[in-house]
Amino acid sequence: MKFRRVASGYLIRLERGEEAIASLASFAAQKKIPCGTIQGIGAVKDVTLGYFDTCRRAYRTKKVRNICEVLSLTGNISYLDDKPYVHTHIILAGPRHNVLGGHFFSGTVAITLAKCLR
Amino acid sequence: MKFRRVASGYLIRLERGEEAIASLASFAAQKKIPCGTIQGIGAVKDVTLGYFDTCRRAYRTKKVRNICEVLSLTGNISYLDDKPYVHTHIILAGPRHNVLGGHFFSGTVAITLAKCLR
Amino acid sequence: MKFRRVASGYLIRLERGEEAIASLASFAAQKKIPCGTIQGIGAVKDVTLGYFDTCRRAYRTKKVRNICEVLSLTGNISYLDDKPYVHTHIILAGPRHNVLGGHFFSGTVAITLAKCLR
Repeated sequence: MKFRRVASGYLIRLERGEEAIASLASFAAQKKIPCGTIQGIGAVKDVTLGYFDTCRRAYRTKKVRNICEVLSLTGNISYLDDKPYVHTHIILAGPRHNVLGGHFFSGTVAITLAKCLR
Repeated sequence: MKFRRVASGYLIRLERGEEAIASLASFAAQKKIPCGTIQGIGAVKDVTLGYFDTCRRAYRTKKVRNICEVLSLTGNISYLDDKPYVHTHIILAGPRHNVLGGHFFSGTVAITLAKCLR
Repeated sequence: MKFRRVASGYLIRLERGEEAIASLASFAAQKKIPCGTIQGIGAVKDVTLGYFDTCRRAYRTKKVRNICEVLSLTGNISYLDDKPYVHTHIILAGPRHNVLGGHFFSGTVAITLAKCLR
């Protein structure tokens, strides 16, 4: 991961092979970011998506193995039991520009993932 | 609705049962926000989506009744006839991570909707 | 294009007929914006979308001629060989609220495109 401090927060570049959510949570802990918002684009693979089923009170998950463009990564950082909690939703596009998305449990950076934390 | 003042604006948490657009417009009026941008994620139901048909000069609407993840809510606040106008576009995901979206006319918060106004 | 300077950057309104990426790159050069992030919504036509095929090391492109709602435009500005490089991903909705998206090569503003550069 590379980052740069800017007026409104941080510009972050996650690099190939990093697990996106773990890297962001670790960064938030290290920089002691108490709360913030996240936006980003890039490309990821091996994504686990979630849809919260309110009847079952549990997430339905789906694994997307192939490389997808990240059209939008939007979310926020808060604290749960003294640990940073990175809550983001992700929108992915495949080779034919088809789109799918959900709660972003995890995913591996495929090319790069540029993010902006404020 | 709960909110917190932060350096770049407000972090807002809409709660279950609130109508999202009406709540945001009311908040903008109360806080006298002259212009701003909105980003958010969460879950909503009973959404009315729009697509502006330029030939007919009117919106084609669609009602989405079931609970959907809000993958992205993006927009801005401006003033029209002295009233705040909240113009946002929304992207929704259903149980099988299928995606649809459009102009966001209205929708009821299903779980929570965390927003960031700046 | 119209714009307004705000605390966090610029609010920009691209007008009908403008080529979105060229207009933003020209604005970034003129205002000497060294780096920044972009969010926006609106409506565009004649969009060229890309998906980066890592095996072929090249983009697969698709032309979308009809007018689409821009549900999300997210990206950043950086510099490449002393010229501003506007890298954005776009999510589009068609008349039936169907969604597609990818890397945003180019597109013509159809109604308006409101953007926020920070």
